[in-house]
Amino acid sequence: YELQVSEGYQVGRVNGLAVMGQDSGIMLPVMAEITPSQGMGGQVIATGQLQEMAEESVQNVSAIIKKYTDEKISDKDIHIQFIQTGQQGVDGDSASITVATAVISALENIGVDQSLAMTGSLSVRGDVLPVGGVTHKIEAAAKAGCDRVIIPKANEQDVMIEDEYKEMIEIIPVSHISEVLEVALEGEGEKDSLVSRLKSITGSALESSEVTKPAGGSEPTPQ
Amino acid sequence: YELQVSEGYQVGRVNGLAVMGQDSGIMLPVMAEITPSQGMGGQVIATGQLQEMAEESVQNVSAIIKKYTDEKISDKDIHIQFIQTGQQGVDGDSASITVATAVISALENIGVDQSLAMTGSLSVRGDVLPVGGVTHKIEAAAKAGCDRVIIPKANEQDVMIEDEYKEMIEIIPVSHISEVLEVALEGEGEKDSLVSRLKSITGSALESSEVTKPAGGSEPTPQ
Amino acid sequence: YELQVSEGYQVGRVNGLAVMGQDSGIMLPVMAEITPSQGMGGQVIATGQLQEMAEESVQNVSAIIKKYTDEKISDKDIHIQFIQTGQQGVDGDSASITVATAVISALENIGVDQSLAMTGSLSVRGDVLPVGGVTHKIEAAAKAGCDRVIIPKANEQDVMIEDEYKEMIEIIPVSHISEVLEVALEGEGEKDSLVSRLKSITGSALESSEVTKPAGGSEPTPQ
Amino acid sequence: YELQVSEGYQVGRVNGLAVMGQDSGIMLPVMAEITPSQGMGGQVIATGQLQEMAEESVQNVSAIIKKYTDEKISDKDIHIQFIQTGQQGVDGDSASITVATAVISALENIGVDQSLAMTGSLSVRGDVLPVGGVTHKIEAAAKAGCDRVIIPKANEQDVMIEDEYKEMIEIIPVSHISEVLEVALEGEGEKDSLVSRLKSITGSALESSEVTKPAGGSEPTPQ
Amino acid sequence: YELQVSEGYQVGRVNGLAVMGQDSGIMLPVMAEITPSQGMGGQVIATGQLQEMAEESVQNVSAIIKKYTDEKISDKDIHIQFIQTGQQGVDGDSASITVATAVISALENIGVDQSLAMTGSLSVRGDVLPVGGVTHKIEAAAKAGCDRVIIPKANEQDVMIEDEYKEMIEIIPVSHISEVLEVALEGEGEKDSLVSRLKSITGSALESSEVTKPAGGSEPTPQ
Amino acid sequence: YELQVSEGYQVGRVNGLAVMGQDSGIMLPVMAEITPSQGMGGQVIATGQLQEMAEESVQNVSAIIKKYTDEKISDKDIHIQFIQTGQQGVDGDSASITVATAVISALENIGVDQSLAMTGSLSVRGDVLPVGGVTHKIEAAAKAGCDRVIIPKANEQDVMIEDEYKEMIEIIPVSHISEVLEVALEGEGEKDSLVSRLKSITGSALESSEVTKPAGGSEPTPQ
Ligand SMILES: [Ca+2]
Ligand SMILES: [Ca+2]
Ligand SMILES: [Ca+2]
Ligand SMILES: [Ca+2]
Ligand SMILES: [Ca+2]
Ligand SMILES: [Ca+2]
Ligand SMILES: [Ca+2]
Ligand SMILES: [Ca+2]
Ligand SMILES: [Ca+2]
Ligand SMILES: [Ca+2]
Ligand SMILES: [Ca+2]
Ligand SMILES: [Ca+2]
Repeated sequence: YELQVSEGYQVGRVNGLAVMGQDSGIMLPVMAEITPSQGMGGQVIATGQLQEMAEESVQNVSAIIKKYTDEKISDKDIHIQFIQTGQQGVDGDSASITVATAVISALENIGVDQSLAMTGSLSVRGDVLPVGGVTHKIEAAAKAGCDRVIIPKANEQDVMIEDEYKEMIEIIPVSHISEVLEVALEGEGEKDSLVSRLKSITGSALESSEVTKPAGGSEPTPQ
Repeated sequence: YELQVSEGYQVGRVNGLAVMGQDSGIMLPVMAEITPSQGMGGQVIATGQLQEMAEESVQNVSAIIKKYTDEKISDKDIHIQFIQTGQQGVDGDSASITVATAVISALENIGVDQSLAMTGSLSVRGDVLPVGGVTHKIEAAAKAGCDRVIIPKANEQDVMIEDEYKEMIEIIPVSHISEVLEVALEGEGEKDSLVSRLKSITGSALESSEVTKPAGGSEPTPQ
Repeated sequence: YELQVSEGYQVGRVNGLAVMGQDSGIMLPVMAEITPSQGMGGQVIATGQLQEMAEESVQNVSAIIKKYTDEKISDKDIHIQFIQTGQQGVDGDSASITVATAVISALENIGVDQSLAMTGSLSVRGDVLPVGGVTHKIEAAAKAGCDRVIIPKANEQDVMIEDEYKEMIEIIPVSHISEVLEVALEGEGEKDSLVSRLKSITGSALESSEVTKPAGGSEPTPQ
Repeated sequence: YELQVSEGYQVGRVNGLAVMGQDSGIMLPVMAEITPSQGMGGQVIATGQLQEMAEESVQNVSAIIKKYTDEKISDKDIHIQFIQTGQQGVDGDSASITVATAVISALENIGVDQSLAMTGSLSVRGDVLPVGGVTHKIEAAAKAGCDRVIIPKANEQDVMIEDEYKEMIEIIPVSHISEVLEVALEGEGEKDSLVSRLKSITGSALESSEVTKPAGGSEPTPQ
Repeated sequence: YELQVSEGYQVGRVNGLAVMGQDSGIMLPVMAEITPSQGMGGQVIATGQLQEMAEESVQNVSAIIKKYTDEKISDKDIHIQFIQTGQQGVDGDSASITVATAVISALENIGVDQSLAMTGSLSVRGDVLPVGGVTHKIEAAAKAGCDRVIIPKANEQDVMIEDEYKEMIEIIPVSHISEVLEVALEGEGEKDSLVSRLKSITGSALESSEVTKPAGGSEPTPQ
Repeated sequence: YELQVSEGYQVGRVNGLAVMGQDSGIMLPVMAEITPSQGMGGQVIATGQLQEMAEESVQNVSAIIKKYTDEKISDKDIHIQFIQTGQQGVDGDSASITVATAVISALENIGVDQSLAMTGSLSVRGDVLPVGGVTHKIEAAAKAGCDRVIIPKANEQDVMIEDEYKEMIEIIPVSHISEVLEVALEGEGEKDSLVSRLKSITGSALESSEVTKPAGGSEPTPQ
């Protein structure tokens, strides 16, 4: 098992991205597994020394998973593991789409593209929310050999990668979790059906509205 | 997904208002989703780094939701997400009506007016209680492009907005959660039925009494 | 909704009394609501930043409520809300009778006299126990426009209110929770039946004994 | 309700004894009530700001109660209330027999002699274990008007009360919880049957052994 | 009830041994009782101010008890009480065999030899593991009037008791919990059957192996 | 029972390896036992003063165990005991494969080779992940008399043992938990079936991908 994987497909494994210190990105994989529960009723168990915001991020993801599976996981445990995080652990909510993708891959036993990396926060209704450090993260994904990277659409204007990376990696902006899985999962038929299921249960929030940017663009600064 | 939305209707999303520091308001959305529960029995899960008073505010709102749904959510989880709150999180109870509206919208799958913002605390019986900082909050709602803003009736005399905002935004004072939903929700038939249901289960406390103001008006100072 | 109410009847709302600092009283309402439980089995949920003694006071009240309802609330949640307590919250056990009255009012859907205020601790068997600061509390009730105030019989000798208040407010000393409800609740028939029920289940402790005062009257100093 | 009671019989109320500071005793009543449980399965709820050793004392008492009732309380809550303990609360395990007597009185609805005070720790098998401060406690019971006081047999040699108290109060040393109830409860028939039940379920530990004192009498110093 | 007992047999009571400070031992009894559970499902409740290692020791013992009873205790509570430990409480895992013996005695209602004292840690599979301070503990058992003392076989070479104690007390080294009960329990028939049951369920770990000592004898130093 | 065992087979006992300070290894056994659960539903109970990363390591292992047993342990408790860890306890996740092997040995009642020692972290999907200190650990295993030692394949290039140890011990690099059990367990038929079961449920992650090393080999530094 190599910690850095950037080719092929794997079930339950997704390349996440994090910022180290001020100006450097790192690729951190997230793994997931679904198991029978041992005690009374299923639970979500996340390891990797998650700080508070990361724990809450997992709770937000669980809303989407529970809605998606519709009671079928009531007696299952969902294991989520941040690999290689050491004693300092994980903070922030920018791995939300990474976690959601790993769990759905494990649930459906469909492979995830390992040449893809991703970063993005999530609302409990499936909207992909902006994160910090996108430029450093994209560069880290490129250095690690990835061919594509998913970022939140709301972060598109924050991308200022150096020229040397521009041809190495394709940037894919998304605004809903269904788009993430459309890009990340292997195959066609089964995938299309789960993507449209995700759209129908969580994806209705944006349809009936036209959204506007705030006049004075005081940029949000989530992490 | 834009963090600032001030047009159209969305299910499970409501524009809340908060005070930053001493003299500045900010519009903070709250999102909600109802899902099957995973383990034993449903629970309320609120994220956004809620401090103690905010957690209690969510518990007070849950009283109204449980009364409103009448056991139908006993095996459902209620997810509530404060968007964009970062590491400092949320405190105070002034988002109570925002949370209640987001949850009922998600429960009933009825859209909420995104050109509307709101602030207000709640009693467990549905009374809208006064909050702090209404002037700054109204100005923030106006700046964010909202057309209307709901405030507690008990805060009416605290409103001292600058002239420039007076024509930008309509101020709607309310005293019961049923009035909030009457204003906020999309449509007519289904809405009217849920509003009158809310009135009948929680709204009886004020009917049989005439209320008086305390002689020496030592104004309450909740947050 | 006015925070200060001193006329009419309301269900699930009772005027409590607290001491602020050394020499000043304040009227603080307590509200209650009974709802279906969401998860597994009912619970008591009290908000208003309760400190330890106040939490224990609520547990003592719950003994009386459970005895009174006799399993009928095993799948209900009891919500108790101290209004207007802010960040500093509530301490002490002197709101015990206020809480008990609010909960029983909500359970039975019988109005509580809002021109009445009250203070008193409770034993788990329904005895009203003495509290501190009765003089300041009575004056606060009078200033807030209340016509009557309930105090523990054991505090009768502690009352030293100024002449100006003596005609404004009637002082009602009580020794058992059944007397509190006899005074506080609206109506007759239904009330009498619940009062005698309360007497029979919790009120037997004092009947078979004659009580004596300790020789050296080292006054108790509960808060 | 008088906090100091030293005559007659009451159900669920027992005069306990505590040491204040270095050289002064105080009589502190303990009350108990048995109620239906609200949530899932019964529990023991003790109030009065119990410190750790006092909490453990209540757990030890619960062993005897559960053995005594034999499943009949599996869906009951046991409420135990230390009266008049204020913010400093209760520590130590010397109220164990007081708590056990109050609970069994409440369970069986049999009155407890209020002219009796008591102090004593308990093993989970019903043995009365020695406590500290017996002399000060006996004097406090006498001052409060009690006619009899129960102490652990193992503390007999520690009693050094002043002459003035010797005729005021009878000292009753006991070694098993069944003896405590034999002395404390009202009536005959029903009491005898419960006392012999207590003996048979918890009282067998001492029968088959002859006990010896340690050679060098390093006196135990429990609190 | 005498705290120091060194003759006869008692059910649910075992003489344990502890080290006080650097160079002095003390005999500390452990008591156990098995009761119906009050709430949902049985639990292990240990009192005596147990520190972390002592709590874990009780958890390890519970593995053996659950294996031994095979579901028959699923709705029973196991109460374990360290007597005479005061505010400083108990630490370390050297009372594991004492606790296991007290619980099995209580479960089977078979007396334990009070002229016997014991010290020893336990693996979850029933192996008796070495402890510290055996010399001081043996001397304390002898001083307290005990005739026999059980120690872990792995501590045999650590025994350096003074000549005066050598004839006072018999030292019995053991390597498995079944040997402890063979020595400690009263009677024959019933005991033999439980001892062989203990051997068969937990005793198989050592049979199929020959064990060797590490070359460089860096002695283990558990407490 | 000898703490250091390096011959024969034992059920539920595995030789783990840890680093002490900067440059010294130690062999630490892990034991496991499976028991009926006492309360409501089974749980995993790990003792030995586990720090946070070690607790999370046990949670990751539990994912594999639950997947492997497929609901058969839902009413069983899994006891895991780190022997000889004292007050300082255990940290890090390098005992993951040791714990998994001990638990599966206990579940299946198949002996583990005691002449084998092992170190390795685990993903929730069964991948063996790299650890720190492999050189010191291998030397400790050799000194303790072991003939073989399992290490993560990803640590192969980190092995720099001194010549004196090279002939004493065989180093076995592995990349999946199924390989660990293939090496560690006694016998053939039953073992082969469980190994292939482990492969099929957790082993599919690596099959469909070719893995590449990151260009700049910034070595991972988990503990
Ligand atoms: Ca590539
Ligand atoms: Ca949408
Ligand atoms: Ca607008
Ligand atoms: Ca009303
Ligand atoms: Ca009036
Ligand atoms: Ca009475
Ligand atoms: Ca008298
Ligand atoms: Ca006995
Ligand atoms: Ca002897
Ligand atoms: Ca063996
Ligand atoms: Ca060898
Ligand atoms: Ca694989």
